[in-house]
Amino acid sequence: MSSPTVRLPRYRSALFAPANQLEVLKKLPRSRPDLAILDLEDAVPDSAEAKQQARQVAREAQVWLAAHHPEQAVYLRLNAVQSPYFADDLDALTPTLAGVVLPKLERAADLAEAVEQFGARGLAHLQIMAGLETVAGVENAGELLQGPGKGPSKGPSKGAVKGAVTSAYFGAEDYVADLGGVRTAAGLEVLYPRSRVAMLARLFGVAAYDIVVTKLRDDAAFLEDARVGRSLGYGGKLCIHPAQVALSHQVFSPSPEEIKRAW
Amino acid sequence: MSSPTVRLPRYRSALFAPANQLEVLKKLPRSRPDLAILDLEDAVPDSAEAKQQARQVAREAQVWLAAHHPEQAVYLRLNAVQSPYFADDLDALTPTLAGVVLPKLERAADLAEAVEQFGARGLAHLQIMAGLETVAGVENAGELLQGPGKGPSKGPSKGAVKGAVTSAYFGAEDYVADLGGVRTAAGLEVLYPRSRVAMLARLFGVAAYDIVVTKLRDDAAFLEDARVGRSLGYGGKLCIHPAQVALSHQVFSPSPEEIKRAW
Amino acid sequence: MSSPTVRLPRYRSALFAPANQLEVLKKLPRSRPDLAILDLEDAVPDSAEAKQQARQVAREAQVWLAAHHPEQAVYLRLNAVQSPYFADDLDALTPTLAGVVLPKLERAADLAEAVEQFGARGLAHLQIMAGLETVAGVENAGELLQGPGKGPSKGPSKGAVKGAVTSAYFGAEDYVADLGGVRTAAGLEVLYPRSRVAMLARLFGVAAYDIVVTKLRDDAAFLEDARVGRSLGYGGKLCIHPAQVALSHQVFSPSPEEIKRAW
Ligand SMILES: [Mg+2]
Ligand SMILES: [Mg+2]
Ligand SMILES: [Mg+2]
Repeated sequence: MSSPTVRLPRYRSALFAPANQLEVLKKLPRSRPDLAILDLEDAVPDSAEAKQQARQVAREAQVWLAAHHPEQAVYLRLNAVQSPYFADDLDALTPTLAGVVLPKLERAADLAEAVEQFGARGLAHLQIMAGLETVAGVENAGELLQGPGKGPSKGPSKGAVKGAVTSAYFGAEDYVADLGGVRTAAGLEVLYPRSRVAMLARLFGVAAYDIVVTKLRDDAAFLEDARVGRSLGYGGKLCIHPAQVALSHQVFSPSPEEIKRAW
Repeated sequence: MSSPTVRLPRYRSALFAPANQLEVLKKLPRSRPDLAILDLEDAVPDSAEAKQQARQVAREAQVWLAAHHPEQAVYLRLNAVQSPYFADDLDALTPTLAGVVLPKLERAADLAEAVEQFGARGLAHLQIMAGLETVAGVENAGELLQGPGKGPSKGPSKGAVKGAVTSAYFGAEDYVADLGGVRTAAGLEVLYPRSRVAMLARLFGVAAYDIVVTKLRDDAAFLEDARVGRSLGYGGKLCIHPAQVALSHQVFSPSPEEIKRAW
Repeated sequence: MSSPTVRLPRYRSALFAPANQLEVLKKLPRSRPDLAILDLEDAVPDSAEAKQQARQVAREAQVWLAAHHPEQAVYLRLNAVQSPYFADDLDALTPTLAGVVLPKLERAADLAEAVEQFGARGLAHLQIMAGLETVAGVENAGELLQGPGKGPSKGPSKGAVKGAVTSAYFGAEDYVADLGGVRTAAGLEVLYPRSRVAMLARLFGVAAYDIVVTKLRDDAAFLEDARVGRSLGYGGKLCIHPAQVALSHQVFSPSPEEIKRAW
């Protein structure tokens, strides 16, 4: 009721593509995702050479997308702030970006460092999507997502950058790997963290993206999982295949009845 | 084990009726609910005129019920403390009431204000049922429910009125609306908040009422949902139809075996 | 990711036996549990005489097991720190023990007292398994399990003994009894606390043992429950019958594929 009602215009789908594949990146707008994400993290091999090559491709893709698809919102997913790649990843940022994704975000201090680095490069306008996909990230989600004056009446959190984060996602695969658990089809092993992240996102007025569905070419499974995500309060889904975008929009677009009711 | 074992005598059912319908209010005791609640909030249209008319009817009903059914415990559900109706709702309180319901309670400061207002009117004896049915209310449930010296060893909470709350309910419909989620038959979207509220109620020795079943005339569905609530630690259910009272008592009354075991 | 990756060598099974039955205690190693626990708490009748007799048997068993099965890790489960039996239970500790189990642990102050008592008796080397099986124990799990410098950036917790706890279990039967709930076959009533304890154990680098399966002679039910526990991040199970040990190992031993993947 008195929760913040700030809602991003549309965040039904965020489609990832590997930041080292220029031709794939250029095609991102084709499926009309609400957000396109060039991925320097999981989609690029874990080596200094691969990351460096991907940064150059990512810069080129950003310029090309801004020129040919100015209507497409584009984010860049950096490697984790606490990773050895982060500092150099900053060189891949161009002013055409709408925002960045900080994967495996765990501590307010890391968020503060990222914000400081963006500011130092004249990129203070970047929106930040927090990737909550480790045990520590979920446990600290409250302080990572809270904005100025929006939180419950708790003590001041040290090092948090109030209002820095505008969206977040819960990453089930990485979370369960970090937990030492096992992913199942029913997904009960992530019901608690998945519920909690959506709830805190809502509490702090942050847009929440639901988990990736790794099984491709199974529309029914995707739709079912998206409906679960929507029931839990998520507003959209992370997508890893263009075909998942339309499916996401099918689930997360408000129905005519819902639109009518809102008026 | 060392949790407080204070248990209200009986709180298997709390039956609501619209505070603006005198004849319905007079019939509240017929189904023998453990608690009858005259509702100035959701059951009364959202306009100053409707609320004002309901306040007068509610006063009349309180007097009538006290005279004709002195054995019936009666609460009045006010509008939310943070709503524009709350101040005038206080005029609807009479000394015959056993307690009040504070819906959509979210902050300790609002609880403190309500307690102060009751005290200023010589109504400090009123029991308070906290309606936890928003994202903020669930997140802040700990400080809203805690009593003096009962809580875990955390810092002092500012503005909390220790021990003011004697019962609470979790409201799934309003919670999910506030969350931006979707209610489902299986109810997994509320398993986390529903579990957490019951757990905190137990931790702080507060009686916990389970969610409303909105589907009427489906006894099997009500019984199944009540059994889930009981498994989670709830001691009774909010009821919105007289027929739900007997069903609640069926589920929440201890069996002869349980009574024997307790001795 | 940056969660501590300390993992005890093996903790797939912890087999309990009543501390007052010498012949049963001597047989504990036969089923080759990763851990054997002599139980002074639930398995021994709740009387001063029964507890005293069990303490003497437990001492004798410890010496016998150390002599005949030096390879077997042995813990002693004391009665709860806050119980009247705890002080005398300390006399049952011998230097042959690898550790102790503190059941129904709820407060950091109780943990600190236990640690102090062990130190005063020259038993500071004892590993501590925290039994989280009450509402207060689950709610305070964070401060009970956290180690030095490992926790999220919260304020200092008063009275906590940093790093004292090396393992923990969630006890569903006692938890639900304390909650005032009902245990069901599906177990959704404990999904939240069971999830939360495993998550916090992982956050603080503590080995986590999953709930007891009370139904004996039903291998399929045990295996199914163990798989749920493993999906939630538990590394092993509490066992109350020797036949449950092999079943636990079946579920919690890494598969050849998992071992290969880890390299
Ligand atoms: Mg990842
Ligand atoms: Mg309502
Ligand atoms: Mg027990």
